[in-house]
Amino acid sequence: MAAPLPPDLIARFAAIVGERHALTTAADVAPHVTEPRGLWTGRTSLVLKPGSVEEVSKILALATQTRTPVVPQGGNTSLVGGGTPDLSGGEIVLSLSRLDRIRELDAASSTITVEAGVVLQRVQEAADTAGRLFPLSLASQGSAQIGGNLSSNAGGTGVLAHGNARELCLGVEVVLPTGEIFDDLRKLKKDNTGYDLKNLFVGAEGTLGVITAAVLKLVPKPKGREVAWVGLSSPERALSLFSLALDRAGSGLTAFELCAALSVDFSVRHTPGLSAPLAGRYPWLVLIEISSGRSAADARALIEEILTEGFEAGLADDAVIAQNLSQAQAFWAIREAMSDAQKPEGASIKHDISLPVASIPAFIEKAGRAVLQAAPGARLVTFGHMGDGNLHYNVSQPEGGDKASFLARYRELNDVVHGVVRDFSGSISAEHGIGRMKRDELLATQSPVATDLMRRIKASFDPAGIMNPGKVI
Amino acid sequence: MAAPLPPDLIARFAAIVGERHALTTAADVAPHVTEPRGLWTGRTSLVLKPGSVEEVSKILALATQTRTPVVPQGGNTSLVGGGTPDLSGGEIVLSLSRLDRIRELDAASSTITVEAGVVLQRVQEAADTAGRLFPLSLASQGSAQIGGNLSSNAGGTGVLAHGNARELCLGVEVVLPTGEIFDDLRKLKKDNTGYDLKNLFVGAEGTLGVITAAVLKLVPKPKGREVAWVGLSSPERALSLFSLALDRAGSGLTAFELCAALSVDFSVRHTPGLSAPLAGRYPWLVLIEISSGRSAADARALIEEILTEGFEAGLADDAVIAQNLSQAQAFWAIREAMSDAQKPEGASIKHDISLPVASIPAFIEKAGRAVLQAAPGARLVTFGHMGDGNLHYNVSQPEGGDKASFLARYRELNDVVHGVVRDFSGSISAEHGIGRMKRDELLATQSPVATDLMRRIKASFDPAGIMNPGKVI
Repeated sequence: MAAPLPPDLIARFAAIVGERHALTTAADVAPHVTEPRGLWTGRTSLVLKPGSVEEVSKILALATQTRTPVVPQGGNTSLVGGGTPDLSGGEIVLSLSRLDRIRELDAASSTITVEAGVVLQRVQEAADTAGRLFPLSLASQGSAQIGGNLSSNAGGTGVLAHGNARELCLGVEVVLPTGEIFDDLRKLKKDNTGYDLKNLFVGAEGTLGVITAAVLKLVPKPKGREVAWVGLSSPERALSLFSLALDRAGSGLTAFELCAALSVDFSVRHTPGLSAPLAGRYPWLVLIEISSGRSAADARALIEEILTEGFEAGLADDAVIAQNLSQAQAFWAIREAMSDAQKPEGASIKHDISLPVASIPAFIEKAGRAVLQAAPGARLVTFGHMGDGNLHYNVSQPEGGDKASFLARYRELNDVVHGVVRDFSGSISAEHGIGRMKRDELLATQSPVATDLMRRIKASFDPAGIMNPGKVI
Repeated sequence: MAAPLPPDLIARFAAIVGERHALTTAADVAPHVTEPRGLWTGRTSLVLKPGSVEEVSKILALATQTRTPVVPQGGNTSLVGGGTPDLSGGEIVLSLSRLDRIRELDAASSTITVEAGVVLQRVQEAADTAGRLFPLSLASQGSAQIGGNLSSNAGGTGVLAHGNARELCLGVEVVLPTGEIFDDLRKLKKDNTGYDLKNLFVGAEGTLGVITAAVLKLVPKPKGREVAWVGLSSPERALSLFSLALDRAGSGLTAFELCAALSVDFSVRHTPGLSAPLAGRYPWLVLIEISSGRSAADARALIEEILTEGFEAGLADDAVIAQNLSQAQAFWAIREAMSDAQKPEGASIKHDISLPVASIPAFIEKAGRAVLQAAPGARLVTFGHMGDGNLHYNVSQPEGGDKASFLARYRELNDVVHGVVRDFSGSISAEHGIGRMKRDELLATQSPVATDLMRRIKASFDPAGIMNPGKVI
């Protein structure tokens, strides 16, 4: 734990950004020391809001010189406590929110250059206006900022066709702990000149430096998009349907979300305006989205072809294609409401895991048995990005049971689920990162060789240890 | 330069792999100290061919202990001297060719796990047999090995739709300079657990450790594929045609190769069996390939749609679609012969550069003027992967001129071309890497901050400095 910040040091840091942008009162810092779910809270006596890369540089140089810990913060939507300070009060929060310029949109090169504090949705809108698509899409896109998206290598619903944040980033500008600026804002799809520094900073959760800007990749805006819900009897059949859809559509398959019936039930039950997509009841449902660069009719023909083949192969039991844009949005809303819809059902223990795609059915079988043995009556609210091998394997408390006593078993059930994840050589963090939440578990279960390599990188990039201490490593 | 290897040390290393797999005679080591073009030669008194990862581990542990430099070598097809030893004779060549097992092909997860010494073409064939495609494809695929492909982050003709070697690699097994084994052979599409170590080793050209195995990503095998040559008047129009094709086909656009008329002329002139693809003469030609997961008819409809729109928009002047598989192969052969076809035309000074895609027309204009001013009469044999922003910007000597005096200007013309590359924020190595060839230039022109970060990584991963000295950094 860091020592509290002495007043004269606060003054020196505040002078860099100007008094107006140095928050010190309890009320002003409050939004920066906790996150929306209230799971991670901390303390700080100083939140800095620099207005330029040069100010970020001065802040980090002074922080290294004075060994002052710095917690970079974007939209503060981390689900693993990646952007909040600890309880010492001695860590400075560095908010990137004022670095919010879109520096350039180059439609011909299909790139956009943005500063770290630009909110994800603004990038999407700017791309759309230029006839392009920025395919990173996630629930918190209205407040999450690009710097945080990159630092956590965010996933979301667009990964299947277009990759994670990492794949959508061509170049970065990073302020190093020393204050030096690593300027690698290039628009190149190919660049084999030395070590891949970009991908070290992307996903490092602010522990190696501060990403201040990035060149992001845009893709053509689809001319047609179709969404369908499919009812089926098992994850095995969902896997076969996924293979079929991927085979026919290639990157035109822009979503393949597997959902246990219960997760759809919860969404519909607790979200005003939503209704069950299928008339009958099926143990598993899949949301398929097809996009076409050719035309709306082409997307329609392709999704019909896939569903028809799915029926003929005995994989799908029922399906409904959205008939218009508002129905398509309602179909997606069912999927997007799943996380929130668990709340009214009581306590929930969450897992963001990834597996080899082919192992998903066996994992669901084995993990389900293990969880129900440990917590009889628990409800498995399984849903996620099947095509990416990524499940949000969430467990709701038994109906009518006690909330606190279920939550008290958070670690224990995490261990049960993550144990099965390891049996299938999976990952305990697919898209949310490590942050504070999974740090100890990562260090306890990761191979010592990997930990050692990470420590060597950390020590050589941040010898003073000022960058986001206690996160990741 | 390293000191010559003492005989007792040679014996200790040889004992690890067994006498049969430790080459010491001049005749035996000869194929390992030069490369096919004869541009890079070196000396060694020991080539080791380990038969297991454990043997690689013992070799590197001994090398670190005795500070013996090691040059990892795959198929020895590097174009930048990345896999050949220096002239000291004191560097051991570590050939991975005996690590040539395909460990597993998982069709359902679309992955293949292979050892470093597996020849690229074998991976392609194994994928094909399983109804999948391994999209990495390059001229030397009959001898290039996967370990080298990954270490150099190889590009090739499949990058447009599927990415570089880096994007096709899900996990690696690496022996570190200490002999420790970093086992990260996971099949995961998403894994946000700490720093991206995989991408550090991929593209490091063997300077941080030795990749001994990898999990590679497979994609669905297309059901239809169509290839066409298009004649057009300028790179600007080619760029517009590229945007159009990408917009319609998305990842179905599997190649878009821009070629100056001269490069097609050379191919046809010097390659038996090839003929000009178009009846008329156009200053620029483009090779377009469209793939479809749906059907052959669908690929045909899509390429016809793109060409028709290209004509209507005034972008294309003529086009011919291959009418059968053998014609498609002949179309590709014209493109693939371009590099070799420069030889009979005399000396050639080559550049493997990348640029923001939208800058290609302006680069071609500006670089052409600069080169012709420096070397009047030189012939610009420009071709490359336009969709990736990657040009093989090759310059053949003036017709009938002196070969040696043109070659003597290699560095000078490199500087001219690379200067223009820098004007457009491009890269001096798009897909071939740095190796020995571009090391000094990289260090002279890269930002000192980037060089410093690379040096810190190198020092922390390989403190004894034994891994592939004099390459990259």
